[in-house]
Amino acid sequence: MSYFPDIPKIEYEGPKSKNPFAFKQYNPDELVAGKSMRDHCRFAAAYWHVMRNGLSDPFGGPTALMPWDDQSDSLDNALKRADVFFEFLNKTGIDYYCWHDRDIAPELNDLSKSNAALEKVTDHLLDLQKEHGKKLLWGTACLFSHPRYAQGAGTSPSADVFAYGAAQVKAAMDNTLKLGGEGYTFWGGREGYATLLNTNMKLELDNLANLLHLAVDYGKKIGFKGQFYIEPKPREPSTHQYDSDSAACLNFLRQYDLMDHFKLNLETNHATLAGHTMLHEMTVAIDANALGSVDANQGDELIGWDTDQFPTDIYLTTEIMLKILEMGGLTTGGLNFDAKRRRESHDPSDLFHAHIGGMDAFARGLKIAAAIREDGRLKDFVDNRYKSWNSGIGEKIGKRSISLEEVSNYALSNGEPTLESGRQEMLENLVNEFI
Amino acid sequence: MSYFPDIPKIEYEGPKSKNPFAFKQYNPDELVAGKSMRDHCRFAAAYWHVMRNGLSDPFGGPTALMPWDDQSDSLDNALKRADVFFEFLNKTGIDYYCWHDRDIAPELNDLSKSNAALEKVTDHLLDLQKEHGKKLLWGTACLFSHPRYAQGAGTSPSADVFAYGAAQVKAAMDNTLKLGGEGYTFWGGREGYATLLNTNMKLELDNLANLLHLAVDYGKKIGFKGQFYIEPKPREPSTHQYDSDSAACLNFLRQYDLMDHFKLNLETNHATLAGHTMLHEMTVAIDANALGSVDANQGDELIGWDTDQFPTDIYLTTEIMLKILEMGGLTTGGLNFDAKRRRESHDPSDLFHAHIGGMDAFARGLKIAAAIREDGRLKDFVDNRYKSWNSGIGEKIGKRSISLEEVSNYALSNGEPTLESGRQEMLENLVNEFI
Amino acid sequence: MSYFPDIPKIEYEGPKSKNPFAFKQYNPDELVAGKSMRDHCRFAAAYWHVMRNGLSDPFGGPTALMPWDDQSDSLDNALKRADVFFEFLNKTGIDYYCWHDRDIAPELNDLSKSNAALEKVTDHLLDLQKEHGKKLLWGTACLFSHPRYAQGAGTSPSADVFAYGAAQVKAAMDNTLKLGGEGYTFWGGREGYATLLNTNMKLELDNLANLLHLAVDYGKKIGFKGQFYIEPKPREPSTHQYDSDSAACLNFLRQYDLMDHFKLNLETNHATLAGHTMLHEMTVAIDANALGSVDANQGDELIGWDTDQFPTDIYLTTEIMLKILEMGGLTTGGLNFDAKRRRESHDPSDLFHAHIGGMDAFARGLKIAAAIREDGRLKDFVDNRYKSWNSGIGEKIGKRSISLEEVSNYALSNGEPTLESGRQEMLENLVNEFI
Amino acid sequence: MSYFPDIPKIEYEGPKSKNPFAFKQYNPDELVAGKSMRDHCRFAAAYWHVMRNGLSDPFGGPTALMPWDDQSDSLDNALKRADVFFEFLNKTGIDYYCWHDRDIAPELNDLSKSNAALEKVTDHLLDLQKEHGKKLLWGTACLFSHPRYAQGAGTSPSADVFAYGAAQVKAAMDNTLKLGGEGYTFWGGREGYATLLNTNMKLELDNLANLLHLAVDYGKKIGFKGQFYIEPKPREPSTHQYDSDSAACLNFLRQYDLMDHFKLNLETNHATLAGHTMLHEMTVAIDANALGSVDANQGDELIGWDTDQFPTDIYLTTEIMLKILEMGGLTTGGLNFDAKRRRESHDPSDLFHAHIGGMDAFARGLKIAAAIREDGRLKDFVDNRYKSWNSGIGEKIGKRSISLEEVSNYALSNGEPTLESGRQEMLENLVNEFI
Repeated sequence: MSYFPDIPKIEYEGPKSKNPFAFKQYNPDELVAGKSMRDHCRFAAAYWHVMRNGLSDPFGGPTALMPWDDQSDSLDNALKRADVFFEFLNKTGIDYYCWHDRDIAPELNDLSKSNAALEKVTDHLLDLQKEHGKKLLWGTACLFSHPRYAQGAGTSPSADVFAYGAAQVKAAMDNTLKLGGEGYTFWGGREGYATLLNTNMKLELDNLANLLHLAVDYGKKIGFKGQFYIEPKPREPSTHQYDSDSAACLNFLRQYDLMDHFKLNLETNHATLAGHTMLHEMTVAIDANALGSVDANQGDELIGWDTDQFPTDIYLTTEIMLKILEMGGLTTGGLNFDAKRRRESHDPSDLFHAHIGGMDAFARGLKIAAAIREDGRLKDFVDNRYKSWNSGIGEKIGKRSISLEEVSNYALSNGEPTLESGRQEMLENLVNEFI
Repeated sequence: MSYFPDIPKIEYEGPKSKNPFAFKQYNPDELVAGKSMRDHCRFAAAYWHVMRNGLSDPFGGPTALMPWDDQSDSLDNALKRADVFFEFLNKTGIDYYCWHDRDIAPELNDLSKSNAALEKVTDHLLDLQKEHGKKLLWGTACLFSHPRYAQGAGTSPSADVFAYGAAQVKAAMDNTLKLGGEGYTFWGGREGYATLLNTNMKLELDNLANLLHLAVDYGKKIGFKGQFYIEPKPREPSTHQYDSDSAACLNFLRQYDLMDHFKLNLETNHATLAGHTMLHEMTVAIDANALGSVDANQGDELIGWDTDQFPTDIYLTTEIMLKILEMGGLTTGGLNFDAKRRRESHDPSDLFHAHIGGMDAFARGLKIAAAIREDGRLKDFVDNRYKSWNSGIGEKIGKRSISLEEVSNYALSNGEPTLESGRQEMLENLVNEFI
Repeated sequence: MSYFPDIPKIEYEGPKSKNPFAFKQYNPDELVAGKSMRDHCRFAAAYWHVMRNGLSDPFGGPTALMPWDDQSDSLDNALKRADVFFEFLNKTGIDYYCWHDRDIAPELNDLSKSNAALEKVTDHLLDLQKEHGKKLLWGTACLFSHPRYAQGAGTSPSADVFAYGAAQVKAAMDNTLKLGGEGYTFWGGREGYATLLNTNMKLELDNLANLLHLAVDYGKKIGFKGQFYIEPKPREPSTHQYDSDSAACLNFLRQYDLMDHFKLNLETNHATLAGHTMLHEMTVAIDANALGSVDANQGDELIGWDTDQFPTDIYLTTEIMLKILEMGGLTTGGLNFDAKRRRESHDPSDLFHAHIGGMDAFARGLKIAAAIREDGRLKDFVDNRYKSWNSGIGEKIGKRSISLEEVSNYALSNGEPTLESGRQEMLENLVNEFI
Repeated sequence: MSYFPDIPKIEYEGPKSKNPFAFKQYNPDELVAGKSMRDHCRFAAAYWHVMRNGLSDPFGGPTALMPWDDQSDSLDNALKRADVFFEFLNKTGIDYYCWHDRDIAPELNDLSKSNAALEKVTDHLLDLQKEHGKKLLWGTACLFSHPRYAQGAGTSPSADVFAYGAAQVKAAMDNTLKLGGEGYTFWGGREGYATLLNTNMKLELDNLANLLHLAVDYGKKIGFKGQFYIEPKPREPSTHQYDSDSAACLNFLRQYDLMDHFKLNLETNHATLAGHTMLHEMTVAIDANALGSVDANQGDELIGWDTDQFPTDIYLTTEIMLKILEMGGLTTGGLNFDAKRRRESHDPSDLFHAHIGGMDAFARGLKIAAAIREDGRLKDFVDNRYKSWNSGIGEKIGKRSISLEEVSNYALSNGEPTLESGRQEMLENLVNEFI
């Protein structure tokens, strides 16, 4: 049976098509810069948004029509959702998916029972993966939704809550491993504070580091070869989260000797909420060899919360694909649509419109990025701008083979330096040639 | 002769005084928690705001009345300004000051000549320091104002510009040492980018680290015992500065092995522009043993640029003094008024109103903070909130003497944890008892 | 029986009290500037926050402990909540309250049945009002929570949805009248748009104005003498709401001939989300003779959504009370605590901490504001600053009894004008004398 | 002689050209939707940015290379700048320009002398206009830069300052008329406040309205037929400007009976600083029949000040052109590049890169907008969404020929309304088909 009987399998029809249920840009097996678009993009669907997001907001209840869902916390309902989800993956042609433990299986307010239910659901997911040729990009434990985590999980003031959260992590890792997950993610939505008046930040961060080390050690023990990720976001739900941006995450990983074990899962809307562009956050992460995966969405920069919109801005997708091409492509990570429809888009068909739009936008961004790289003018400009560092005083400074006095003497004899124009406007025009 | 003939020496008159040219709160030699207010606060005046800020803004020219200043770049004018400044320090009773090289001495567009002029001015400043018993909190080189630094100094694409900047740093360090400066600061207003399209971030950061290492090595050589500081700010003047907040600074210092040599100079308005409270930034820095000094001002959180207002919010000054008391007090650092009058406050007397208000606000914050600490309820609440970490499972996790399976087993047997209220509202009421 | 058995009636104990369940500032019958604090403040409790806010957020479920509530939509549960609420009013000594129709009575997804339930609940509320001497500040219809209003109520693209919303307004007005409500409020959380791509703004605003005119006409017909209010807020839940700030509301009221019938209900957190201070919004409204009532809360200016925190900042409450005293006091309006506890403050006792803190903060603000007015220096400064408008060229311009050429001729002969300092820092210090 | 000897006249070479000094999109005489691109766009250059912007910022001095400018305030220098400017207009093919009085002629700190200098410069400009076939889009008086206006011009606390500003307005209007200017603009950068503590907002706004009425009356007298504009901006340079956004401007115009005489001059960067999209501001203005002209630029939404960047975002230019086509085209107004190069782009050639990019981006936006309109799907969707307002209950509500009881009765009998999906994602995909 079909849960989306009116939706065809989405096929590539090219840029002239006016069919809203077709790709205009994404042609999975077309080669771009020597690799298929599918392999460049490694698209993933987010189970929570596709199957569990009723589209409620702080001022109103759910609107999403989900005729297949009986709204119960039963195991049967959970298993049925998995079937619906795989039909969705098939029709969109998305190869990967991601989950939180409590999205795919019920929170039964009893840890043993919740664990058992999770095992049953992942048994079914494993069957579905094999049947449909889909893969798990990453799994994670939801340590932010239940009231027990209201004051944190890894950073809870209560050691019992920490232990409960750690137990969820263990189970989520076990099930990620079972499903062949290529990664495991921590998002610390409650790992922060509501007010510093009642908070011991240092103790909380020590504890959070302990949780991550426990997970790393356990991963080694069970043979988990996937990549661990942490995911930056500055605020929301908490007043301030510790993993607030790439730099804060890297500082934390360096301080607690975790750089070898973790990479970053970056999301555009989290970047902009932190006051950075996605391009900035990606550059910071890549320069530290720490870009792991991408939560593909976009925000509304005039809005101060996480709108998690589907990524449709071609400038954004071009920038992201430029950086991904520059780093040599995604390996364990992917482009995971951590994005939700607007609350007004309540039809199941809107799920398809949304993902089609996101996939086409990234496909187009990929083609533009590849063209910019082939053109070469942009890279040449940047290389030329820094050429003074390749020899002479620049080279000596770069090698630290010179003292401050010597540099000062050079400057005294060298006179007033000249500066070339930064040419921002010309470079923006150049990019527009390719858009 | 007097440059402020109508302004008396500012004396403490107590809270009932209505004299605008008197302290109502700051009584320098009064003991609070066993130490004089003077020694708690270590107030400093910023030469650039007091003497050189004409109060222009991007849409209008200078308004400040400076009858002593002939607006020339002459050495005589620079020396005269120093006299005016020390009269200001004397009348306000501020013990410390801070400078940029190009505030105190002219930029002559010839490095040798600029260096020579700087030496002459610091000769005079040294005399003034001795005569009036004032001290230099820190010095710094202005590497952001001249067009040569438009694209960065330590992060310039031009090695020649880097060298020029390094030479300024050398001279500024020499003169800081001469004046017995207790610190040396780097503020990287141009150490960032206008657009990532033309930027090699990794190379720029490597170079910036090289500049800091050059300075550290040179400091050792010349016997500079003061503290080095870097100062976070996210944007303005550049589109994005690398030292964007405490975490970004610490990440940078850790990456480049500079943690032993640098502390942070934190400013409230920079904290809020980065999306953090000052309390957050201070806590991050203190927990890393890296809080060095404070640029005492406040911003307008509805405004997206650095308004650098004088700190008058008692909540803010209370929070700052709570953290300073908690860390055991300032050592090499101080409370430096990196704050400017509004453009409409163009009278010399407004310089006094502004500093009196800031000093009184910190004095009051100090007294409130000391009272909160003596009361003890706030600290007791926090200690009690985390008590589960002192024994049992909490203690084991803290010592990492337990595995993830063991923690999971504990959670499975322990049942649903209970959570105490965070009591934010009660704690805010408690603080208001003391305001 | 008592629903808050551990909470005493909150009494005034004065500033030295350390009892968290006592007022330190609010002494209801104490006279300030010739009027009781009770009559100055006209405090109201918000039924939705006290009784219906489970403290869920977009990333987590409800945490609030409500042992009296069986979580059902039954009429019995609704009636019981009313009893609990009046115990809360009695113990806090709050005289007024406010409601949305669907807070006090169930949404039964059948308009007749919902209307009937609402009537039964308001029968009970009327009894409780009489028994306890409490009053209704204002009522309103909830036209934003149900999915039918996802795309607006008065601005819905569907005339049927508009009609449904209008029917809710009618019933809410009927019940407000029954309870002697002193006002009726419209908050247009869904009166805006998610995207302009699908929106006819002009038609939507015409329709919204029609809804308000229908209500005004109906009010006349049924003899409702209370004040109508609209309430500004820029965003959230919608991408952009039409009633975005005071100016937008006034522009709308002027355009559609509604100025005679509506005043504004202003909220601090909505003001700051719109980029204004509460003081700005109040001044705009008062200068248009359109300040009606105040939703008393405060936001976190570093956070981009409506945090609806309890107002504890003494600067804020001082400013609000200064404006209220200046306008001659509140008449139909009040200080309604449209504020919620933090999600971590899940105890019923936190409801009391929160309201005590807010009431004390406003009581203190009232006393400070009255003292500033009695002192007179602030007003004298402002009056003196504008004295040139009382005579001569200023007076002529004010009366428009002069032409542009004549003004130009005056300026040509008058020479360069002089400008007095704005003295912002001195005035901020002056305010701090009273804090 | 040529001031830009290395820059050719910019010609259209089409999208395949890689010549940075050629248009790829803007082909002035090509017809789009039946009108030439030139007439659709009515491009204007801003004298202040092209000729007078040295590219200084609050932390650094000017960087722009202007070899033709001797940096003096002499009349000769002013006249020479005009020559340079007209060469710029010719080479870029821009037909219109805009000025502030003090950009084109010196501020001599003597009103008679400044007026006389202005007359001489506009004599020369008139000759240049005739010689080169260029036109003045609008003129304005700079009432924000000189210290005398530090506390406002039309809203100054000093009547003498108001008079001085009014005299500048008179002279600027005289000279605008002389040059055949099609409009006259007021931008109130100092018409606001630094702090409400010292401000009488009502008096200031009364005075501002008086200034506008004086100007309207004077315009009638001298036969000025051009359009008056006011220009919204929320902050910067002041803490809060009165003309903060479209709604605030319209509210002000309605209150003071100025709606018949003024339209709005909207700028993208001002819109976003006010928390609105440009599309929102344009829609608000157009629906009030009050869109006059456009200051064409774009901001960086992560930056809290007016970056005034050149408009290169195709989404933005498409939206602007969609609205302009929808309103039937610009009449007296135009697309005025109120945009500046980045401080790092200091070469004269960067002026050309910047304007070429902006013109190409609007040309492309125009072609896309025309294609979307011809396609028709977007408009059809919106029309269909609101179809319930064309008949039945919708039509009655629209005509106000029904009472609230009748609407309520309709709703009671009509049952639960159904709601169609808002289809935001589908519509965003549709737009991307055309980008």
